[in-house]
Amino acid sequence: MILWVAAALLLAISCGETVRSLDETLLTSPDGGLTLQFGLSGSGRPYYALKRGGEDVILPSGLGFDLTDGTSLKDGFAVVSVEKDSLDETWTPVWGEEDKIRNHYNEALVSLKDSLGNAMNIRFRLYDDGLGFRYEFPLENKLVYFNIREELTEFALTGDHTAWWVPGDYDSQEYNFKECRLSEISRYCEEMRIPNASQEGYSPWGVQTAIQMKTDAGLYLNIHEAAVLDYPAANLLYDPARKTFQIHLTPDAQGVKGRLQAPCKTPWRTMMVCPSATDVLASRLILNLNDPCVIEDVSWIHPVKYVGVWWEMITHKTKWSYTDDYPSVQLGVTDYAASTPHGKHGANNENVRRYIDFAAENGFDAVLVEGWNEGWEDWFGKKKDFVFDFLTPYPDFDLPALNAYAHQKGVRLVMHHETSSSTLNYERWMEKAYTLMNQYGYDAVKSGYVGFIIPYGERHNSQPTINHYHYAITEAAKHHIMVNAHEAVRPTGLCRTWPNMIGNESAMGTEFRARINPGHTAVLPFTRLQGGPMDYTPGIFEQDMSITAPGQEGKMHHTLCNQLGLYVTFYSPLQMAADLPENYERFPDAFQFIKDVAVDWDRSIYLQAEPRKVIVTARHPKLSTLNASAESLAKLPDGRKDVISGAARFVYALPEDAKSLKGATPHDVWYVGGVGGPEEQTVTFTLDFLKPGAQYEATVYADAPEADYETAPQAYTITRETVDASKQYTLRIARGGGFAISLREIL
Amino acid sequence: MILWVAAALLLAISCGETVRSLDETLLTSPDGGLTLQFGLSGSGRPYYALKRGGEDVILPSGLGFDLTDGTSLKDGFAVVSVEKDSLDETWTPVWGEEDKIRNHYNEALVSLKDSLGNAMNIRFRLYDDGLGFRYEFPLENKLVYFNIREELTEFALTGDHTAWWVPGDYDSQEYNFKECRLSEISRYCEEMRIPNASQEGYSPWGVQTAIQMKTDAGLYLNIHEAAVLDYPAANLLYDPARKTFQIHLTPDAQGVKGRLQAPCKTPWRTMMVCPSATDVLASRLILNLNDPCVIEDVSWIHPVKYVGVWWEMITHKTKWSYTDDYPSVQLGVTDYAASTPHGKHGANNENVRRYIDFAAENGFDAVLVEGWNEGWEDWFGKKKDFVFDFLTPYPDFDLPALNAYAHQKGVRLVMHHETSSSTLNYERWMEKAYTLMNQYGYDAVKSGYVGFIIPYGERHNSQPTINHYHYAITEAAKHHIMVNAHEAVRPTGLCRTWPNMIGNESAMGTEFRARINPGHTAVLPFTRLQGGPMDYTPGIFEQDMSITAPGQEGKMHHTLCNQLGLYVTFYSPLQMAADLPENYERFPDAFQFIKDVAVDWDRSIYLQAEPRKVIVTARHPKLSTLNASAESLAKLPDGRKDVISGAARFVYALPEDAKSLKGATPHDVWYVGGVGGPEEQTVTFTLDFLKPGAQYEATVYADAPEADYETAPQAYTITRETVDASKQYTLRIARGGGFAISLREIL
Repeated sequence: MILWVAAALLLAISCGETVRSLDETLLTSPDGGLTLQFGLSGSGRPYYALKRGGEDVILPSGLGFDLTDGTSLKDGFAVVSVEKDSLDETWTPVWGEEDKIRNHYNEALVSLKDSLGNAMNIRFRLYDDGLGFRYEFPLENKLVYFNIREELTEFALTGDHTAWWVPGDYDSQEYNFKECRLSEISRYCEEMRIPNASQEGYSPWGVQTAIQMKTDAGLYLNIHEAAVLDYPAANLLYDPARKTFQIHLTPDAQGVKGRLQAPCKTPWRTMMVCPSATDVLASRLILNLNDPCVIEDVSWIHPVKYVGVWWEMITHKTKWSYTDDYPSVQLGVTDYAASTPHGKHGANNENVRRYIDFAAENGFDAVLVEGWNEGWEDWFGKKKDFVFDFLTPYPDFDLPALNAYAHQKGVRLVMHHETSSSTLNYERWMEKAYTLMNQYGYDAVKSGYVGFIIPYGERHNSQPTINHYHYAITEAAKHHIMVNAHEAVRPTGLCRTWPNMIGNESAMGTEFRARINPGHTAVLPFTRLQGGPMDYTPGIFEQDMSITAPGQEGKMHHTLCNQLGLYVTFYSPLQMAADLPENYERFPDAFQFIKDVAVDWDRSIYLQAEPRKVIVTARHPKLSTLNASAESLAKLPDGRKDVISGAARFVYALPEDAKSLKGATPHDVWYVGGVGGPEEQTVTFTLDFLKPGAQYEATVYADAPEADYETAPQAYTITRETVDASKQYTLRIARGGGFAISLREIL
Repeated sequence: MILWVAAALLLAISCGETVRSLDETLLTSPDGGLTLQFGLSGSGRPYYALKRGGEDVILPSGLGFDLTDGTSLKDGFAVVSVEKDSLDETWTPVWGEEDKIRNHYNEALVSLKDSLGNAMNIRFRLYDDGLGFRYEFPLENKLVYFNIREELTEFALTGDHTAWWVPGDYDSQEYNFKECRLSEISRYCEEMRIPNASQEGYSPWGVQTAIQMKTDAGLYLNIHEAAVLDYPAANLLYDPARKTFQIHLTPDAQGVKGRLQAPCKTPWRTMMVCPSATDVLASRLILNLNDPCVIEDVSWIHPVKYVGVWWEMITHKTKWSYTDDYPSVQLGVTDYAASTPHGKHGANNENVRRYIDFAAENGFDAVLVEGWNEGWEDWFGKKKDFVFDFLTPYPDFDLPALNAYAHQKGVRLVMHHETSSSTLNYERWMEKAYTLMNQYGYDAVKSGYVGFIIPYGERHNSQPTINHYHYAITEAAKHHIMVNAHEAVRPTGLCRTWPNMIGNESAMGTEFRARINPGHTAVLPFTRLQGGPMDYTPGIFEQDMSITAPGQEGKMHHTLCNQLGLYVTFYSPLQMAADLPENYERFPDAFQFIKDVAVDWDRSIYLQAEPRKVIVTARHPKLSTLNASAESLAKLPDGRKDVISGAARFVYALPEDAKSLKGATPHDVWYVGGVGGPEEQTVTFTLDFLKPGAQYEATVYADAPEADYETAPQAYTITRETVDASKQYTLRIARGGGFAISLREIL
């Protein structure tokens, strides 16, 4: 259906470059709560505005582009047509927080043409929980190939909202969140930029997407982007005078901020508008704006709960490297077999077998092993092109034998591809590396992008590098490989389209240890996790680094129960139990929750939330994926399905040594998790989501009365009781604390 | 053997940064003609100088580097040791101008250390015909990873020599040569930089390697480089005040001019010193400084004489593209089958079959077909990343059927991979593209690098791109594929190490048509061809573009016989007969020489030479490679050895329709070729290289008396006579002219 915009609309726009109001409504959200206004300024610049229940949410905000050839797409436009549409569909994610997602919006495609004949269309989708819009450039256009100097999209806000943000950067998202008023961003921006491995030359103040905001009226707003592909990722520059964010894209090696070829479209720009914080967590706006899954056979994609030879390296107990003999390594030339091992190499056969045994005993699906391959002696900070070959193990890592040993125990190894950000080199070896994985039965890879990008001058968040990440995902899919990319650009919902993208880091994760501020994990689900799951690697029971790795320093800012809560509050189909086996063995009763918890869900309920303060979530496991890893292992020649996942044991109430699910009856099971922030608090919630009339055995893992992240981080209580849907809990959450509850129906 | 440099040497150096003389001789050439001096300045900067018969050739010239971290490697050095060595070996090239090459030098490795503990060694090799030296950085060094801001190597000359040069550039070598005095370089540098497809931002005046010079005393000097790998290519900046060239390296996307990791070495810097111009042509200095062949089985590498669906596109008679329907192509999305062909697509089945027939009838080994694959509608000038997939033919190019048709006729197709300089994209598709070639029996690829390099900001001659070309060569070798890369960096003798690198363009070739100055082809063998063969694509019989392609303009600056001469004066194991079949059919008697001439040699004699004026060369074919292509074709499932090469027909004196060499007796055969310059001239030479006592049938293809590149370019005479070793020829060469002689022993 094509509607012509009323002439009144065009005339209603005030003259001049600043538009004070847009009176004409272009779209209304399905529930009528949100209305979108669109119009052109006197000079022909397109503007939009957003209201909720008649109140302004976004004031008239400019749209358009400056191009590198000196021209621009920001004035002289006239509306050619407006085409309206709507959709109300329900789709089934391969994995996720629920088994059905509703995608319900009203849409308008506004076709514009400027006085030079340049066509620029804007597609708006208005949901009940927010707005998405993107620019589209049709093939039949004066513009065919063109380069962006800057995207001029604005978000003009109505007040000095409270905001939770990380500082702008072209390469890294690994920062603590700051909570402050918008007007204070410039004051804190530099101090929030703590050093990391990829900082070079960029320092305009500003923030990254996603930014979570709260108005003084209690409305939760969130600016993000969706489906960032073949386009750079955005920062947001804040102009306090105009209370306006403007997009600031990541430049490529030649300073270009997007090289476009019509027909093409930009990523979606999004503004989530929610009356409560739990609604933000329940929003599927970003996923819905991405394209449906394009992988036809998804049977090989499955959730993974894993342990890994990793934390011992992060904490400097062992090392990724093998020898201290060489100041410089040349792959294929340096003879490791002839070198003297320094004796601290973590990925050695004996140690990896120990982790495999631990995984099998405790119902984990997989064991990540980092530092298995040649090159770790000088991989970092050298801008070294040929840094790894992803094929050649160190002498003490018997790749075939370790995989066989793991498969015999019903466990898989997770491959590790640290690229050192030499994407050029990774692409040269990728096909061989994925083929090696297929050969030995690896079906998941953790990739890493630490350091400066090669091709020289590119950025982690620039268009060519974003295209590289996508290339890695699509090539992996051909090999039936799941990818968990660390240090890559923050995800923007692409996992809907490519569900083998089972994880990302793209934020400050556990590896930052004592540098993580309390409350950090109570912000991430509002921001970073909106775009897709994070491999946060929770589960650190031992906060004191000097105990984990004698001689090291630092204490992490969380209680033990906080870490348990994360397995529920953080959604990821890929969850690690990150601490050392020996640390878990010291707390077997608390570790039981990590063993029992599922990682994929058919229902999620957000019971309580406030950014940086608290998140309480209840989730119901998706039975069909509970044992998927064991199922897929059974397809391996040497695979034996003799170990089943811990969550399956819990759901089927099987003993620890159960070898089969055959004939077992599933119990209705829920998990509840809570994480707090920097202040002590009490939360109250009811279990009204439980099956009416049914009785459940509840196991509550809670901060002990004396628990506190600084003074008693390991103080916890475990209580068991029989409950039903009427049960109301009032729980204390310590500073940096949390809790977890497992609920199993009593049959 | 380690010798300590005499203290006297160190003391003999004058103080200050300019060194006036170096008295101590470090090395003498095997024949005693050249002597190399080395020493340190008062500030500890290393200097070298070169004399011939006691006369200065290179005055004391500084060595060293500035590094990007602000430090330098140019003073404070002391000599730690001097290690001397020598070699006299003869090696066998897989293909070349002769079947045995002598590599005979005296060597000194000077180990230096500066006051900061940085080790920098310089390896000098002194040959009878020139000097090579390079820097080497050992592993045990304070410097491990370091980046070059500039290489400070100098060549201080003794006078205002005459020079033949092309202007400096980071991307292209496709320029006419200028002949002038060194002092005039700056005056002409800009005007010589005619526009080409890769010019962006670079304009410091200077020249490229190789530069040919001649002293007023008649000594021929040539500055070049050898074995440029994992290092940028060099320009040379000339300082008229000091009569000194200094290296000016090609920067990468971040301005770095070489990222080094010890242990490592730079390319060789070379100065050829020859008493005559023919000695320059006979020099194997550049090849000798490269490493020996690393390909174990070279049986699949063979010379190729070919025709191609190419000149008709260059002349705009037909097109690479298929349709005018789309302003922009998206590979895999754009549906060519549904498009309207514009009707001028050259690589269509019928036309390709016509070329295959022509090749088979005339004894050519292969047919190049450009424009066979999707994407040519918008491949150029867009900086388009995913520009070709190297796999998908246009609808009217039946790849399997055409290869089968060619093989049936004893001919191979030559693959074409135009990368549009998107090396990133080429590397993504390379393995699949080479595999496709193997599948259908292609064993040679012409690759192209037109336009700006992607990764963005890289240069054709920067280190990462040079590493890309090498990657393409080494990956091709794994597939038994020969590579002829156009627009890639000028070669520097790497074909000794990787003889599947059978050709390069890397200079202004035939495709420049009327823009090529007369005399151009009489300079190239002194400069460009020193580094390896050029796919110059000679053989243009029709100089007038309006005849070849009605509606086009321009007349090329050569006579028909000039083009025949090039098949002998230009060495390449890959030689094209570039003109249209229909143009050859107009001159069947002259075309006979192209059919008869060989392309690989066991002996070459340089009879007469002067840069830009004249080159006369005699060559003797290498029988073992005469029919190599047919031999290798026979290995194909559908290959039939029923067509033998034209040169084999000539050597074995077989009729045109001969199907087998069985039982045939080779005749002793020589070919002589001559090319001239902008002026008319007469050359005189004797055939004293012929077998004593034997009689030969000589066929002389010569410029007719009225021939002239402007007024009568197609005027030629063909004469036949019986000659022996006493025969002396005196031949007129027209302006832009040349000649060719075939000599077949009468048995």
